[in-house]
Amino acid sequence: MKKTIDGPALVYVDEAFNTPNGKTAHGLVRFTERYEIVGVIDHKYAGQDAGLVLDDKANGIPIYTDFKEALLGINPKKKPETLVIGLAPDGGRLPQSAKNTIKLALQSGLNVDSGLHDFLYKDGEIAALAKKHNCRIRDIRRTPDRDELHFFTGRIEEVDCLKIAVLGTDSAIGKRTTAWIIVHAFRKAGLTAEMVGTGQTAWMQGAKYSMIMDSCINDFVSGEIEHAVHEAWKNESPDVILIEGQGSLMNPAYPGGFEILAAGRPDFVILQHAPKRIEYDGFPGYKLHPLKEQINAIETISGKKVIAITLNHELMRREEISPACEEITKETGLPAFDVLAENADPLVELLKPYIK
Amino acid sequence: MKKTIDGPALVYVDEAFNTPNGKTAHGLVRFTERYEIVGVIDHKYAGQDAGLVLDDKANGIPIYTDFKEALLGINPKKKPETLVIGLAPDGGRLPQSAKNTIKLALQSGLNVDSGLHDFLYKDGEIAALAKKHNCRIRDIRRTPDRDELHFFTGRIEEVDCLKIAVLGTDSAIGKRTTAWIIVHAFRKAGLTAEMVGTGQTAWMQGAKYSMIMDSCINDFVSGEIEHAVHEAWKNESPDVILIEGQGSLMNPAYPGGFEILAAGRPDFVILQHAPKRIEYDGFPGYKLHPLKEQINAIETISGKKVIAITLNHELMRREEISPACEEITKETGLPAFDVLAENADPLVELLKPYIK
Repeated sequence: MKKTIDGPALVYVDEAFNTPNGKTAHGLVRFTERYEIVGVIDHKYAGQDAGLVLDDKANGIPIYTDFKEALLGINPKKKPETLVIGLAPDGGRLPQSAKNTIKLALQSGLNVDSGLHDFLYKDGEIAALAKKHNCRIRDIRRTPDRDELHFFTGRIEEVDCLKIAVLGTDSAIGKRTTAWIIVHAFRKAGLTAEMVGTGQTAWMQGAKYSMIMDSCINDFVSGEIEHAVHEAWKNESPDVILIEGQGSLMNPAYPGGFEILAAGRPDFVILQHAPKRIEYDGFPGYKLHPLKEQINAIETISGKKVIAITLNHELMRREEISPACEEITKETGLPAFDVLAENADPLVELLKPYIK
Repeated sequence: MKKTIDGPALVYVDEAFNTPNGKTAHGLVRFTERYEIVGVIDHKYAGQDAGLVLDDKANGIPIYTDFKEALLGINPKKKPETLVIGLAPDGGRLPQSAKNTIKLALQSGLNVDSGLHDFLYKDGEIAALAKKHNCRIRDIRRTPDRDELHFFTGRIEEVDCLKIAVLGTDSAIGKRTTAWIIVHAFRKAGLTAEMVGTGQTAWMQGAKYSMIMDSCINDFVSGEIEHAVHEAWKNESPDVILIEGQGSLMNPAYPGGFEILAAGRPDFVILQHAPKRIEYDGFPGYKLHPLKEQINAIETISGKKVIAITLNHELMRREEISPACEEITKETGLPAFDVLAENADPLVELLKPYIK
């Protein structure tokens, strides 16, 4: 197995696996280049295969009752180096049960990574334990100090490889997953591709060049995007860079993606869309703007062209997918693909001619 | 004189008054409801009247060589309670000379307000002096902790008074000044108007309900805008709320204003424009998008209507202003006003019928 950035890791998601509050854990169980996931903790599914529970597809990642059972169960050669908090509860608060497990993990010398709003470094007890056992605690959502951040400089203009932003018609619609699939399809096609992450899950999945937009000081968002893209280009000189989008342009409260267009300067936009989604995620009563209007908004505001639509097939039967793609093409004049149900090879074929 | 929020204040802007790096001081000398400005420190203009130097219009605010001279010169009844750092140097670093004056001020029992990127609270010497003399230090740009910030809730929908956002076709184009002028014109017309500030200068000028967008954690920008507007409505039940815009929608690196449109939910947008401005502020080579395109972008992205254009007459002779307004109306079909050269009364007449 390919060496990961942070080695073997155990994911804590007690009572939330296979629920919306477990989505960080789900992302990690499905795919990460940062960790080698060697186990999941959720007593509700103890003894089962995480992949089977989640996607009806075994992935050899066992689910354990608790931390002690996990340490006993995991192959000593794969002893986890990190405990990852896979919970994403509303409000992002840290439950007591999780805190107890974190303490056990630190006592056993594991590092701890957390994406919760409750920062572990602020918990005196946890911080002291980490210090005592010389373990690293990373609060992924912690806002970096100004002196660690970059202002926009304009050097994005130097980046001369193909840049593509994957935006969406809504949040929580699969932009990140689609971006990864496209990156891997490019690599499979023998090209070099880099993913620039803009959210904490992309970071946890190993996007080597990333910034976390929602916890960034607003003034530095553009500069951090520019910096991540420029570093990816400078260090890897890839054929193509995919930039993960955030939110959606016309979201009724959290418009997003503008800095990605302005500071990331993509050559093209790929727009992820869920035909069956009626209202904006988290905003009941707010009708999703029609696909055509959203394409027009992107092109009007940024002057960038939407080159393809990628499908999120939520609430669709398998046989509805192809007709839906044809429908989208008829409506927008753009090619449409379901890279999740099929694969991204045809999309990569479409994009190849634009490699510089 | 109307009681201000923070009382008499002395503005330190040595060697930068009447230069672009003195813009914070200029804003304060021209107008603030937060402080009563009793003097300015800049040895280059010592002995002169700040208003005369800046606008050829005396305002009775004397300029002093240094702190000591200022304390001697200022009427004891108006002894300053606060030293305001009026410098806005590129990079926002604190010069040594400023630091010395800050120390003198703290030793004399003055509070200190600063909008620099270099935070005073982080300077051990300054922090210790403040503690010793029981003085307050406020770093206006300091990013508030998450637990002081608000997420978007949707309660903006309760706000049933007229809401108007003052956006601009570029940054540094006069959005804030125009918004204040409109607020005061509404008040002069016997209506109650509140300004919701979104930048540090508006805060320093006394916008009672404000947030500072550029230092806010990105995830909370929408919620903080909603909170400021909602509080202004709840506490003051005004006839109209003006919301200060930030940046511009089509800025090549720092697009702005989207959260104001999405979370502030203005009924209308007033768009500030400088006909003689060719390139985006700070981005040589980036041609400003035509006014019509920018209006279209605002209306496309937000569904909000631009109701009027306000003029920034930079680089224009007085006699060019009216023709320019007529030109804009011919081009856009919208009424155009120079509220700075004339006044905002005609604009207020235009808006009055929309008071709810």
